[in-house]
Amino acid sequence: MLMPMKRAVILLSGGLDSATVLAWMRREGFACHALSFRYGQRHDIELVRATELARVLGAVEHKITEIDLRAFGGSALTADISVPKDRADEDIAGGVPITYVPARNTIFLAFALAYAETIGASDLAIGVNAIDYSGYPDCRPEFIAAFEHLAVLATKAGAQDGARFKIHTPLQMLSKAGIVKLACELGVPVAKTLSCYDPSHEGVPCGHCDACILRRRGFAEAGVVDG
Amino acid sequence: MLMPMKRAVILLSGGLDSATVLAWMRREGFACHALSFRYGQRHDIELVRATELARVLGAVEHKITEIDLRAFGGSALTADISVPKDRADEDIAGGVPITYVPARNTIFLAFALAYAETIGASDLAIGVNAIDYSGYPDCRPEFIAAFEHLAVLATKAGAQDGARFKIHTPLQMLSKAGIVKLACELGVPVAKTLSCYDPSHEGVPCGHCDACILRRRGFAEAGVVDG
Repeated sequence: MLMPMKRAVILLSGGLDSATVLAWMRREGFACHALSFRYGQRHDIELVRATELARVLGAVEHKITEIDLRAFGGSALTADISVPKDRADEDIAGGVPITYVPARNTIFLAFALAYAETIGASDLAIGVNAIDYSGYPDCRPEFIAAFEHLAVLATKAGAQDGARFKIHTPLQMLSKAGIVKLACELGVPVAKTLSCYDPSHEGVPCGHCDACILRRRGFAEAGVVDG
Repeated sequence: MLMPMKRAVILLSGGLDSATVLAWMRREGFACHALSFRYGQRHDIELVRATELARVLGAVEHKITEIDLRAFGGSALTADISVPKDRADEDIAGGVPITYVPARNTIFLAFALAYAETIGASDLAIGVNAIDYSGYPDCRPEFIAAFEHLAVLATKAGAQDGARFKIHTPLQMLSKAGIVKLACELGVPVAKTLSCYDPSHEGVPCGHCDACILRRRGFAEAGVVDG
């Protein structure tokens, strides 16, 4: 008799990183429930890509949840602030960038936790990685560990039924080049992924924002052609 | 010279508890930014009440954020499940009720944290209390403490600027009768508050759900007429 597959909730943005996480979790044998957000981002095209990636990579379900982060402003990704272009390396590496959305991963993981609880899953996955640590506080391992701890206390499953939550972060220690290599190994259709903070409506990357710069460098270092 | 008032974000539902928290935080001297959610609840009328209470109780700002918890189902407050009526005391006291919304307070506090970060606040307030502990895991003091810890790690303010977040829970140790007395002492217009899980469109309480039963008992024990 076949064992039923364990369910997991995967945060999926349409970018290279989260697509790689989805493919990784599939390889780990999880039945993957993908979750994306329409959160007032400049670029709705990433949700089109997320939908396509969920299908191609074999998610059993894909939910898009509407939330309104614009109400709080404070980020170039949601407010009327320009996305910085052609920044020097030391600027990309230093401090919290203007594209930081306040408490975004806390909000995303909170929804993922709600989703997990309703489907009886105790595994979540998110594409945080080493490159982001310097800039985004909510991408650090200690943040992830704190959320795992919170999840047990926050839920009926944890408080009443003794569930322990695991947040999988398979990219945590990888450079962008490492992520590119892993994506290729897992058969992620990288051309369908979109990393840019400021793409055209049709999904053409700007080529100049931090995300485009890091992606280009990652593919170059990995010796892989993007697209 | 007057010191600028410290800002705080108050989760405000339109019920008695959160209105009392708002009044308490005002008395503590905070400039109060109230936050409510339209989350697919059966009763939109509570947002009408929240708006009125924010105004009457002197919030400097009131935001209503739209989120979609219905996508995850799993609760009588958001899904097509009946709200239980006329339950016996031991049923009200025992286990996680069907009105529990998966990860709701985690989601609410995550948004409050985003709001706090954009206005430079490190104080949040929520109306969790002792009555809820038995039923709702995300009302317990250890959950609140875990969220305070997470907030520091999750935010630019915490990670970069050394902010420490405080989640005020002034009702934590109070019975419903204690909350009623505190509300009266603070001048909360209790008649404008709505506790019912299943009110009419006009905001008339059903009188039979757990919230109505607990409220009626609280007013009786406090020796106060409701309304």
